[in-house]
Amino acid sequence: MASFRVAILGCGTVGGGVAKILLEQREALAARAGIEIELVRILDLFPAASSKRHGLPIELYCGGSNELSREEAGQFTEEILKDDSIDLVVETIGGSGQAILDIALSVLDHGKHLATANKALLAKHGPAIFGASNRNSRAVGFEAAVCGAIPIIKGIRECFTGDEILALSGILNGTSNYILSKMEAEGQSFDAALKQAQDQGYAEADPALDINGGDPGHKLTILLKLVFGLDVDFEDLPIEGIESITSADINFAQEMGCSVKLIGYAKKEGDDVFATVRPMLVKRANLLSDIQGATNAVRLDNRYSQENVLIGEGAGSLETGSAIVSDILFLAKYGEKAVQELPSSDCRLRSFNELAFRYNIVFTTADVPGITGIVATAIGNQKINIDTVSHNRHDPENAVFSIATMPCTYVQIQAAIEEIQGSHPGSLLEEPKIIPILGE
Amino acid sequence: MASFRVAILGCGTVGGGVAKILLEQREALAARAGIEIELVRILDLFPAASSKRHGLPIELYCGGSNELSREEAGQFTEEILKDDSIDLVVETIGGSGQAILDIALSVLDHGKHLATANKALLAKHGPAIFGASNRNSRAVGFEAAVCGAIPIIKGIRECFTGDEILALSGILNGTSNYILSKMEAEGQSFDAALKQAQDQGYAEADPALDINGGDPGHKLTILLKLVFGLDVDFEDLPIEGIESITSADINFAQEMGCSVKLIGYAKKEGDDVFATVRPMLVKRANLLSDIQGATNAVRLDNRYSQENVLIGEGAGSLETGSAIVSDILFLAKYGEKAVQELPSSDCRLRSFNELAFRYNIVFTTADVPGITGIVATAIGNQKINIDTVSHNRHDPENAVFSIATMPCTYVQIQAAIEEIQGSHPGSLLEEPKIIPILGE
Repeated sequence: MASFRVAILGCGTVGGGVAKILLEQREALAARAGIEIELVRILDLFPAASSKRHGLPIELYCGGSNELSREEAGQFTEEILKDDSIDLVVETIGGSGQAILDIALSVLDHGKHLATANKALLAKHGPAIFGASNRNSRAVGFEAAVCGAIPIIKGIRECFTGDEILALSGILNGTSNYILSKMEAEGQSFDAALKQAQDQGYAEADPALDINGGDPGHKLTILLKLVFGLDVDFEDLPIEGIESITSADINFAQEMGCSVKLIGYAKKEGDDVFATVRPMLVKRANLLSDIQGATNAVRLDNRYSQENVLIGEGAGSLETGSAIVSDILFLAKYGEKAVQELPSSDCRLRSFNELAFRYNIVFTTADVPGITGIVATAIGNQKINIDTVSHNRHDPENAVFSIATMPCTYVQIQAAIEEIQGSHPGSLLEEPKIIPILGE
Repeated sequence: MASFRVAILGCGTVGGGVAKILLEQREALAARAGIEIELVRILDLFPAASSKRHGLPIELYCGGSNELSREEAGQFTEEILKDDSIDLVVETIGGSGQAILDIALSVLDHGKHLATANKALLAKHGPAIFGASNRNSRAVGFEAAVCGAIPIIKGIRECFTGDEILALSGILNGTSNYILSKMEAEGQSFDAALKQAQDQGYAEADPALDINGGDPGHKLTILLKLVFGLDVDFEDLPIEGIESITSADINFAQEMGCSVKLIGYAKKEGDDVFATVRPMLVKRANLLSDIQGATNAVRLDNRYSQENVLIGEGAGSLETGSAIVSDILFLAKYGEKAVQELPSSDCRLRSFNELAFRYNIVFTTADVPGITGIVATAIGNQKINIDTVSHNRHDPENAVFSIATMPCTYVQIQAAIEEIQGSHPGSLLEEPKIIPILGE
């Protein structure tokens, strides 16, 4: 039986998972692929530690010492790239700088398929990488780059191909969802929930990209290209994280029959695609409201098949590793035929703030008689219909209440707030909190 | 641009959906497949009616008259089979008799790919059909045969391939789920909910296969082969439908924090695969409990990536049609490479009744003092641990109560019941209702 030969560059959390599965499932994978999948080399800066951590034979590691110098690592990378017997390289080094981009491009330029979990790299350098893929007729597997074990990439490229995706919404970051779930289920503060996420290993020591929406933003950037053919500059995507979510917000949400979730959202209307990552109030009737802990979920709203929801683990060594192994198998089976140009379109990215959506607005006001009327009138002046005014909380000093709107734009709401601030200066004690409501 | 030419045999609900999508999405499909997908012929016994119903050009129909004789239909079938320019035939005639099997085999023997939604045919004649597929190097697309728009077939064959599926559980029949949802949400009787399902077009005039578990049984038979390499004779699969579910059962379930769902279930332990289709009490923490209406859902429990759940519409013209179109695209892109032998294994089908599972047992007893103790003792004698005894309902004549067990086998429970019937004849007024409990 011929074999399909694989090398792994970077054997940390995800690379280690890939190696482990390739070795443990060798027979099953061969039967499934119709060809032996052979792990031939692993390159990691710390061979001994990686080998020990993942229980992998040290003989597979380039060098095999305790630590490689950058220079040695560079030489071994060259060796792997020039080894014509290697069919596919797994890039699990991480980072999105020039050095990693060069390695990814070199893999393809040297006639090898590439499999990667690197969402930041693809979000920033997608055109360069997929250009090299097409130029060399070598494929890029990136199932693991978006929502780990959820087969959303092959889902879009190979499964929902008989349909037209009109909108997508998803919980694309496990750490944020873990924190929000803990705040909701156990009444924890944001800081306490974040600390627990870090203790559980879900959040990095520097959790910035997880909680500021950057990580799901990278994923959404990739999905926008795949689904709508949209080339989005990551910097142009309106992104808001969960840092500003308080226990009070969670309580309001629960009273409204909603959960607060960090949602990656995109909707196509004509040639406009409205997209964002931001916290939303998700109605209980929407399955996304039920996704607990570090789990991810993606919902597609399709022209013909209506809703499809895919749920699974978004991170983890073996979870993400299994997604990369599925790419290896796919490329072993379909080879060059799996090289696909990413879709292009005339669509343009529009600000989510111009899309009509339901919103909840929380006003913290001075305890002035008539303030509810003043606020409601200003909203009405912007031709926004109000669904409910509710959840009043008074204390001697001020009043907190929320208004849920019928579909309107964020821009309209901002105009209403400006009107209140102009006609009744000082009546709004805080900037009103405006959160979209995701319905059924 | 070259084209990939498609003919449709049988243009009813599903075939009509396929044709509609192929025509409406012609440009998008070509861009996605890298080749024009051309619908060249439709064969239906009633061309005029089918054309009118689906808004399809009559010119595509063989004959084009009001009605074809069986003889004419046979001649047109021959024509299509012998037309070397046709690459793929969609079989959406339905039925699982010899005539349909012959057509399916002929498609492959004439060197054409086959796409079908026919679960009964595949469940009964899988080996013959996939044998012909391999023999002729022509593929069978059957995404639409299991859970309509949910990409569970490509999910298993192309996406979760880097993992090992240990168990699956799913809501595989929309009609049953619609009925159970209505009974739960609106307190309807079984008969009223069934009538509503028929009025809504979810259930056939003869709903037998939907509500007696036959339809999900066909789907589970196909999944058992795909996932575990198990050749199951459909007749050997233990299947129970929802006919016996009463409003009282639904109420008991709700009190226990469960929903009643018709579950297709399979679990591998060593070389044993325990499988069944039957009503289960599904705990609220399990997402399958949230699936409402005619929606389908499949959950996979995997060695590496843990749980994955796929949710979507299981039936409908365009929903199922879109799944077939995705098969057409897949085969247009990957051609012969998409021909895959189905997995084989040494696994054997074991009775679900021998698998340790949590159960709920509802006893209807004469109102005899001490009956709870008698029942609990008999259960203890079979070394079954009791989780809870609860939900007593007394009336002057009799008592109804339920016992939820820790994991035990159905066989153990039966032995306990026999003991009670032996030692206290007449104390059990009805055959106790034994329903498995599906936890998190």
